[in-house]
Amino acid sequence: MQKNYRTRIAKTGLPPGSLVHVGERHTEQPLLSLMVYNEQVVKEKTLTVIEECRGFQEQEEAVTWIHVEGLHDIGLMEQLGALYHLHPLTLEDILYTDQRPKMEDFGNYIYIVLKDFSLPPEAGGPLLPEQISIVFGPHFLISFQEKQSPLMEPIRERIRAARGRIRKAGADYLAYTIIDAIIDQYFILLEKLGENIESMEDQLVTRPGRDTLLAIQNIKREMIYLRRSVWPLREAVSSLQRTDSPLMDAATDLYLKDVYDHTIQIIDTVETYRDMLSGMLDIYLSSVSNRLNEVMKVLTIIATIFMPLTFLAGVYGMNFKYMPELEWHWGYFMVWGIMISVALSMLHYFRRKNWL
Amino acid sequence: MQKNYRTRIAKTGLPPGSLVHVGERHTEQPLLSLMVYNEQVVKEKTLTVIEECRGFQEQEEAVTWIHVEGLHDIGLMEQLGALYHLHPLTLEDILYTDQRPKMEDFGNYIYIVLKDFSLPPEAGGPLLPEQISIVFGPHFLISFQEKQSPLMEPIRERIRAARGRIRKAGADYLAYTIIDAIIDQYFILLEKLGENIESMEDQLVTRPGRDTLLAIQNIKREMIYLRRSVWPLREAVSSLQRTDSPLMDAATDLYLKDVYDHTIQIIDTVETYRDMLSGMLDIYLSSVSNRLNEVMKVLTIIATIFMPLTFLAGVYGMNFKYMPELEWHWGYFMVWGIMISVALSMLHYFRRKNWL
Amino acid sequence: MQKNYRTRIAKTGLPPGSLVHVGERHTEQPLLSLMVYNEQVVKEKTLTVIEECRGFQEQEEAVTWIHVEGLHDIGLMEQLGALYHLHPLTLEDILYTDQRPKMEDFGNYIYIVLKDFSLPPEAGGPLLPEQISIVFGPHFLISFQEKQSPLMEPIRERIRAARGRIRKAGADYLAYTIIDAIIDQYFILLEKLGENIESMEDQLVTRPGRDTLLAIQNIKREMIYLRRSVWPLREAVSSLQRTDSPLMDAATDLYLKDVYDHTIQIIDTVETYRDMLSGMLDIYLSSVSNRLNEVMKVLTIIATIFMPLTFLAGVYGMNFKYMPELEWHWGYFMVWGIMISVALSMLHYFRRKNWL
Amino acid sequence: MQKNYRTRIAKTGLPPGSLVHVGERHTEQPLLSLMVYNEQVVKEKTLTVIEECRGFQEQEEAVTWIHVEGLHDIGLMEQLGALYHLHPLTLEDILYTDQRPKMEDFGNYIYIVLKDFSLPPEAGGPLLPEQISIVFGPHFLISFQEKQSPLMEPIRERIRAARGRIRKAGADYLAYTIIDAIIDQYFILLEKLGENIESMEDQLVTRPGRDTLLAIQNIKREMIYLRRSVWPLREAVSSLQRTDSPLMDAATDLYLKDVYDHTIQIIDTVETYRDMLSGMLDIYLSSVSNRLNEVMKVLTIIATIFMPLTFLAGVYGMNFKYMPELEWHWGYFMVWGIMISVALSMLHYFRRKNWL
Amino acid sequence: MQKNYRTRIAKTGLPPGSLVHVGERHTEQPLLSLMVYNEQVVKEKTLTVIEECRGFQEQEEAVTWIHVEGLHDIGLMEQLGALYHLHPLTLEDILYTDQRPKMEDFGNYIYIVLKDFSLPPEAGGPLLPEQISIVFGPHFLISFQEKQSPLMEPIRERIRAARGRIRKAGADYLAYTIIDAIIDQYFILLEKLGENIESMEDQLVTRPGRDTLLAIQNIKREMIYLRRSVWPLREAVSSLQRTDSPLMDAATDLYLKDVYDHTIQIIDTVETYRDMLSGMLDIYLSSVSNRLNEVMKVLTIIATIFMPLTFLAGVYGMNFKYMPELEWHWGYFMVWGIMISVALSMLHYFRRKNWL
Repeated sequence: MQKNYRTRIAKTGLPPGSLVHVGERHTEQPLLSLMVYNEQVVKEKTLTVIEECRGFQEQEEAVTWIHVEGLHDIGLMEQLGALYHLHPLTLEDILYTDQRPKMEDFGNYIYIVLKDFSLPPEAGGPLLPEQISIVFGPHFLISFQEKQSPLMEPIRERIRAARGRIRKAGADYLAYTIIDAIIDQYFILLEKLGENIESMEDQLVTRPGRDTLLAIQNIKREMIYLRRSVWPLREAVSSLQRTDSPLMDAATDLYLKDVYDHTIQIIDTVETYRDMLSGMLDIYLSSVSNRLNEVMKVLTIIATIFMPLTFLAGVYGMNFKYMPELEWHWGYFMVWGIMISVALSMLHYFRRKNWL
Repeated sequence: MQKNYRTRIAKTGLPPGSLVHVGERHTEQPLLSLMVYNEQVVKEKTLTVIEECRGFQEQEEAVTWIHVEGLHDIGLMEQLGALYHLHPLTLEDILYTDQRPKMEDFGNYIYIVLKDFSLPPEAGGPLLPEQISIVFGPHFLISFQEKQSPLMEPIRERIRAARGRIRKAGADYLAYTIIDAIIDQYFILLEKLGENIESMEDQLVTRPGRDTLLAIQNIKREMIYLRRSVWPLREAVSSLQRTDSPLMDAATDLYLKDVYDHTIQIIDTVETYRDMLSGMLDIYLSSVSNRLNEVMKVLTIIATIFMPLTFLAGVYGMNFKYMPELEWHWGYFMVWGIMISVALSMLHYFRRKNWL
Repeated sequence: MQKNYRTRIAKTGLPPGSLVHVGERHTEQPLLSLMVYNEQVVKEKTLTVIEECRGFQEQEEAVTWIHVEGLHDIGLMEQLGALYHLHPLTLEDILYTDQRPKMEDFGNYIYIVLKDFSLPPEAGGPLLPEQISIVFGPHFLISFQEKQSPLMEPIRERIRAARGRIRKAGADYLAYTIIDAIIDQYFILLEKLGENIESMEDQLVTRPGRDTLLAIQNIKREMIYLRRSVWPLREAVSSLQRTDSPLMDAATDLYLKDVYDHTIQIIDTVETYRDMLSGMLDIYLSSVSNRLNEVMKVLTIIATIFMPLTFLAGVYGMNFKYMPELEWHWGYFMVWGIMISVALSMLHYFRRKNWL
Repeated sequence: MQKNYRTRIAKTGLPPGSLVHVGERHTEQPLLSLMVYNEQVVKEKTLTVIEECRGFQEQEEAVTWIHVEGLHDIGLMEQLGALYHLHPLTLEDILYTDQRPKMEDFGNYIYIVLKDFSLPPEAGGPLLPEQISIVFGPHFLISFQEKQSPLMEPIRERIRAARGRIRKAGADYLAYTIIDAIIDQYFILLEKLGENIESMEDQLVTRPGRDTLLAIQNIKREMIYLRRSVWPLREAVSSLQRTDSPLMDAATDLYLKDVYDHTIQIIDTVETYRDMLSGMLDIYLSSVSNRLNEVMKVLTIIATIFMPLTFLAGVYGMNFKYMPELEWHWGYFMVWGIMISVALSMLHYFRRKNWL
Repeated sequence: MQKNYRTRIAKTGLPPGSLVHVGERHTEQPLLSLMVYNEQVVKEKTLTVIEECRGFQEQEEAVTWIHVEGLHDIGLMEQLGALYHLHPLTLEDILYTDQRPKMEDFGNYIYIVLKDFSLPPEAGGPLLPEQISIVFGPHFLISFQEKQSPLMEPIRERIRAARGRIRKAGADYLAYTIIDAIIDQYFILLEKLGENIESMEDQLVTRPGRDTLLAIQNIKREMIYLRRSVWPLREAVSSLQRTDSPLMDAATDLYLKDVYDHTIQIIDTVETYRDMLSGMLDIYLSSVSNRLNEVMKVLTIIATIFMPLTFLAGVYGMNFKYMPELEWHWGYFMVWGIMISVALSMLHYFRRKNWL
């Protein structure tokens, strides 16, 4: 079970806007990387103190992108918040890593929370969620990530190489690009889960067992978590698309529509997997019943053949003084004959009943 | 399982609008067929280079229909896109053959994606989806299909023979005609699936087995896929009907309403089949239980009859010195009599309990 | 299974508006009955050629009602369509007898499709649907029925006798009257189905069997079909009520509200029946389990009593040289004593466990 | 099964507005009680002829409340309808006692139908529904009830004693008071049903049986009926609250909001009971499986212990000439020793498997 | 079962607005604590008579917070109601402790009802609900609680210490703070329930039994109650956020949005738990079937091995005069040989069938 409610408790009783980082501490030192670009130039820098941002903040003709990996340095967060005039609740939400995906328009900036899931190192474990927060204004974008990961590298590469529209467009397009990259991760995740489902399906047909059931239930639970994150994701993308904030360029709309279509496709796939898992559960349960049927048939066949025979043998094992058959010379063989014909007719009966 | 998520991964990390054909390569060489018609004349041509379209493109008094079979020639796509001013995202969607059915209004043209399903060559296999894209503007329509098929032939025939309104109407009516033809395919598909369901129902009553269960689950899964495609289809047709684009002629509205009614009828049928399949699953499961009951009755009847008899025989097989019955002259026959009456009364009991 | 998709295929590939009658041919010759009435007079006539309508068509101060029984004479349909300026799609829908109930406003007339269900001649068969189409304009109403039936007779009777408002009101009130008559048929149908459900319930308690299950599933399926027809019926009546067409008189509104309440009541009853059938299925399945339990108890009781006894008998059937009990004079009777007390204590145990 | 559809059939084929009383005839003679009150005075009278109302009808400064118990006197109904200008459809609905709860605004009066349920005299029987109709205008309110009951007595008492706002308020407040009184009945009913559910729950844990199942299904069905009546009740109260009819005083709004909250609470309770009954069904079914498991364990333990023993006894019952063990002096006791150790090791095995 | 309907009955037949306290009497004497604060000062007092409030009531520049613990003193309630002009229905709702969470705008004040759940003292018991009512106007807030508890202490502490915005903001912010504190309780509750679910999951895998089933059903029921309270809670918070009452400061909106997000998160968790409990029920049921299978396998293996052997022993226990095998010197050992090879081949067969 993912214990996402736990973290909440650390904050109970504090006034709203209190900055408490709830979540695991993944890195020693938060990593800040700065990128400033426009159509002509790109500048990159790894920051050590937040003050270094200050120069870039006023550049109107360029996009300033600050990417933060690691959330536990609250002082740094407060400085960033002060520099870009972020609302205390935004900072609180960034630090409290158990948000539902959502989009909020604060007027001077837009705040977006997303979830990125990665597969666990060992098979069968729960999915590992990571919260990605994006804050963007007219000429800046700050993205927050819980731990260091190569997630943003392809985007940086694209900016450096000036591939696509990215260098010509504003911070809203950069936000779109990040969202798109995260949503692409869902497709990869779903492929892996789909492969697991497939292999479980094969197992279900060849050798169903209790562990198959537990595996199905496990993936079902992961689906519940994914679903819980994907539906609000769709909502968030949709409200980002429909917002009339001046921060969103009309040209970005079509791209967001595209991302929105992808979220619907992800939801579709998640729902399809859920339906398939239900079907697999039905197959499992009926295969358990089928095996019981088979076991009982074996028992019944054996009992039905040997009980009459044992009875017959018992009859001629009785010690009555006067039992004429016992005196007959061929009596013993006759009894064998009767026994064999009883057994054969039983077998014939079972074959007709299609039990053999 | 249809691996529709796979294809998505090929595109991960690329900027939007990158043209990558995801899907199988069905033909050696894309096939382009051109048709230009108005009320008076029809001209037909098979194109080899895209430049041959150029002359027709300006004809205001006729409808130019370019039909493309095979999507893997990206250069050709780019030329077509440039010629008709298609948005990069439209081209991307045409090539990425895992879209949900949808309709998008780009102002100067309308873009529609549909799915056409065909039955697999061998029974029990998954349905084969094909993506059909339609782009139409004031005087042109371009349709895209993944592989060569006779799907469009009846429409061409109708244009050649000037049957119905088609030669008098515009590109929007042609779009309607293509959509209608594809939706008719669904009816044929549903008939086939309905026949399968019927034959499975018969099988369920006469000789239910594990393969019946798997067959039911198979069709159930196909229904999940169909459903996933039919609901957005309805939406797409509905938004095409309600659009206030000047590209749609008011006279075509009634026809689209008709197509819309058909999509609802398809959804109805799909839902009905789903309900029927659930009912069949219930019957299957209860027939498994019933058979278990029957097996257990046979076992119980046999055991209940022969256990007392064997016991009796065992009693008179004991070697006690003093057992008066053994000395009686008719003892043996008396025991047979007792045994037969025990057996008969047991049979009577079972008949009264309705087990025989 | 009702093969309503079959009929669709006959039309595949034809241009829209092509008149093809899909459905069974129920009568030799379509029957046309004409009725012209206003507050003062009633005229009735059975038509042979459509031209005879022409005179009546212009009468502004009366309602002209043409009732057509039998749909297969396409020429006749085309003449009627031409006479009353019906849209080709309306004619197509009238002939294609697999429509969902709907209401369409064509401006100069309103088109309504309804389904009338009748019980099959033999018990357990599927419900027989019949499509009733109604077209009405300012001073005329044409109704279409697939086969001859006395469905309309009570309405004609009411017109002749001038009972109620009907002779004073217009074509819209006549349409209401016909819809009301058809919806009354649903109540009769539901009563019959309710009686079947009741008798199945009794059967379920007294002697449940595999045929009970099949009967429940049968009615369940009929319910699926009814439902499929009743929900759009509600929608059709509702949009008829809410329409702002000048063809509908405000005074008819209250009556349509009444009919609308009836459709909701029918839906309520259908849903209630569905819930009851689900409950019956649960009872059936648990009664199967219960019977298995009972069978197993009988087996267990018999086995548990006779196995120890047979063992005891077997012990004293052994041929050891030295077995002191065998020599005892009362040994045999002692063994009987032990056997009987074992049997009795077993019976006591089962009684305490509530198995007897 | 409540045969509410039956009654409908009596009316099939009649023109709308035909007054037919459908429902049981509960009283010999309809009972009319008249109450006229304002802040200063209260007058009460039991009417014999409808004409006696006439005087009171014009009183503008008082509320005239006519309460009718027993609906079968159609003449009386027509006189009342004529006196207060009721629409024929209202009268029809009052008499046809199988309405869904609803509220209809006829301009000069508001018509409300409600259902009052009472518990059946014998346990396990179906709930007894009674239809209460309320018609109120600017200065009058007429309420109709199928049979005589003390339902309205507390309200009359409150009017006589001038408790609360009732004597100061108008007919709309009286209507609210009656609705409130009826909804209070639901709470009493739900308490009784809740007690039944509780006692069934206890029974389920201590001694579940087939009758428990039938009792659960019985209450489940009653819940279906209650639900069917409560949801439209909510709707009716809601539309009464939201109506902009001048007949409703703004001050009554808050009270109706209160009643509305009560209907939601009733719905909540009904849904909760449904969920609990489903849970009980699950427990029942699993307890049936559990008992089967237990029965089978007893059988298996007995068989597993005695089959090897009986086999051993059988071996030494064989009559071979040369069987050395038989000659041993302690052979017999040795065999007993073997038998007892086999039995004990079996018991040990079962204890380890947790079957004992 | 929580008997929330019971309490309702005490009020049946009373006019609306009658003050009857329904609920348990938790304290001897209601406890009133008064707190008056603004940015500069805080005054605290424990009240004995309600008159002491009067002075504070007029203070426009401060927030007056009266917290009432214990609801049974109706006289006190009436005085409070008179002092702050509360509507009789508000007082009635405060006293009737079985409300659904809701928010009502009375113009001069806003009334909010919430539920606070606490875990029962002993494990497995039902959750203990407590009703918290909040009434706030421009400069005052009155909160009502059924029993004494430290729920409000952290808020008072925050006011005293002037932590966060609370001293600078108005009564609406105080209301938000109280709601937030109550909703935090849900997170703690859900954590406890989540731990229970986890431990039940472990139990389900290691040693499932009937008590596991009952425990699952118990938590499922608690979930039904929680759900019933959480959904209207969301609604109440949402309508508080969306209200255009002048009592709500725009600055509080963002905080309410935050609380609203929390309610959605609670709903999400509750729904996730429900899904998990359903999955656990499936696992439980299938583990019951699995165990039956196992029991039956043991029985079948034993029976299948020993029945043929016992039969063989029976054969050579027959007393025929002429049975050649009996005379053979090695006959006895040969039979043992046959018996052992039969047993071994049976064991081999079961091993191949994967039953061992």
